Amino acid sequence: MIPTPSSTVPANVSASSAVAGAPAFADVLAAAARIAPYAHITPVLRSRSLDALVGAQLHFKCESFQRSGAFKFRGACNAVWSLPEAEAAHGVVTHSSGNHGAAVALAASTRGIAAHVVVPEGAVQSKLAAIRAYGATLHVCAPTMAAREAMAAQVQADTGARLVHPFTDPAVIAGQGTAALELLRQVGELDCLMTPIGGGGLVCGSALAVAGTAPSMRVFAAEPEGAADAFESLRRGERVTGLVPDTVCDGLRGTIGPINFELLRAHHVEVLLVSDAETMAALRLAWERLKVVIEPSSATVLAALLRYRERFAGRRVGLILSGGNADLDNLLSGAAARV
Amino acid sequence: MIPTPSSTVPANVSASSAVAGAPAFADVLAAAARIAPYAHITPVLRSRSLDALVGAQLHFKCESFQRSGAFKFRGACNAVWSLPEAEAAHGVVTHSSGNHGAAVALAASTRGIAAHVVVPEGAVQSKLAAIRAYGATLHVCAPTMAAREAMAAQVQADTGARLVHPFTDPAVIAGQGTAALELLRQVGELDCLMTPIGGGGLVCGSALAVAGTAPSMRVFAAEPEGAADAFESLRRGERVTGLVPDTVCDGLRGTIGPINFELLRAHHVEVLLVSDAETMAALRLAWERLKVVIEPSSATVLAALLRYRERFAGRRVGLILSGGNADLDNLLSGAAARV
Repeated sequence: MIPTPSSTVPANVSASSAVAGAPAFADVLAAAARIAPYAHITPVLRSRSLDALVGAQLHFKCESFQRSGAFKFRGACNAVWSLPEAEAAHGVVTHSSGNHGAAVALAASTRGIAAHVVVPEGAVQSKLAAIRAYGATLHVCAPTMAAREAMAAQVQADTGARLVHPFTDPAVIAGQGTAALELLRQVGELDCLMTPIGGGGLVCGSALAVAGTAPSMRVFAAEPEGAADAFESLRRGERVTGLVPDTVCDGLRGTIGPINFELLRAHHVEVLLVSDAETMAALRLAWERLKVVIEPSSATVLAALLRYRERFAGRRVGLILSGGNADLDNLLSGAAARV
Repeated sequence: MIPTPSSTVPANVSASSAVAGAPAFADVLAAAARIAPYAHITPVLRSRSLDALVGAQLHFKCESFQRSGAFKFRGACNAVWSLPEAEAAHGVVTHSSGNHGAAVALAASTRGIAAHVVVPEGAVQSKLAAIRAYGATLHVCAPTMAAREAMAAQVQADTGARLVHPFTDPAVIAGQGTAALELLRQVGELDCLMTPIGGGGLVCGSALAVAGTAPSMRVFAAEPEGAADAFESLRRGERVTGLVPDTVCDGLRGTIGPINFELLRAHHVEVLLVSDAETMAALRLAWERLKVVIEPSSATVLAALLRYRERFAGRRVGLILSGGNADLDNLLSGAAARV
């Protein structure tokens, strides 16, 4: 499934950007073809008023309209459909009560194979209901990372299911890159691309897509100040894993993976920090001007554009709005929340 | 600008559906060509989960993504660009602090002519700011319909500006019909179409588009129980004008116009009532499943589908989500509202 870098680095990508064990641009192209029958082509929205506010030309790639409500379906779908038949027959397993769990469940259902999703005690019931509605089997464990990994290993041992990691799996990274690839096919070359960063699957896949399509483009990642492990890792030159996340961006609390860290460095991705207050202001702006329901994690990209606007003045910027699974119970007030 | 019915009724529309003084299908076609350089082609969204909930195949025409955030731009744009040059030079005037006011302001700006918008004292400042941002001149008057009409007449007398009525102007009705026309071109013939009804511009334009494109389709209008003048008018067989509206749907408080009433009857439009609680539940559902910010008026169509679902079982239904200018200050809670 994962060719060696030497066989997949296209001519227009410098050898220095190839990372051992990591996917390459050819894998993003293959992923795009593989998931095409199942994934949506998502729209790109523009807003004159947001362009004026930032002083740049913004192209919003709305993965909030992707199946399962987030870009995560791309990577999960690529991973599920990359499995050889005999391996796929045992199903897939992951540990996530968020968008990746739902995405793996839905992706498995498109292939008609079993999905096991390990979720922590106390997870939001509505999210669990969504995962169950896609046909997955839930496995509840204690709310620690160690318990989740142990339970996932147990499910693997019991069923032979293949683990689909949310951001270090090379097939997942390649799949996430298809959103940026699709954006560039829709609007042509841009000056910059900005995605949120949590574990690093989306931004690394995006960097691969950009390197193979429009290598002069710069890639940026927006990260919450309260979960700044990617920023700190790049600053220190080594992966920082000890931070305890504290941010409203529930999709960005993961710690960047080793392969993701190497890809960030190889592709010269720059991480820009934003505060939760800036993120929530940007969320409000996106809802108001774009009329799109996005979750807080997605709003970080617009928040970063606004905070560092002088760096993007006059540029054509692509922004990946990563998902729309906002917690409406918390965000809506009054009648709209209680009905 | 407004051809006589005999010259415009196409062969596939029965003569009985022609209403004296009203636009016809040919006017909708002409409007579509006229506004094409200025209006957006809006996307049609689908949702497997909403289909399952209603038990029908739903096609959501998202006018929330239309310029100015509502279908109103279509009618205003058609009215503005239908004016002869000499008349246009004097500008246009309307009285509305809502979506129609903003739409007329923006439409006038696309032609480079003056727009005068009469607004009542105490109107929401953010809406006035939007109208002003499109370059219109605001005229503030007392918050009664009589004062608004008097002020509009005064502006007409002073400037020679042409009045663009929000729902009785034939060019406005024809323009609003372009949303349904576009929907049918995007998804093909459907079994039914459902739009909200306030003054009746959108549903009447839609009925014209349907009659000329897919005459076997049924047209429905969703109306708040607290503003049921169209429902009552059809029931009694005469236009009811004395009702005092009481509904969260601020876009649907207008009283149906005379020409709109005649078109409703001629095209056998059926009005379905929904409660505000049903509308707010549907709004929540649309935000959650479609990931689209819509305003309460728009949610009436989904509310009606849910309330009368047995009537639409298995049908292919088009729904016009009329606008996305939701009052986020009221709808959002906590941090999202106060930033």
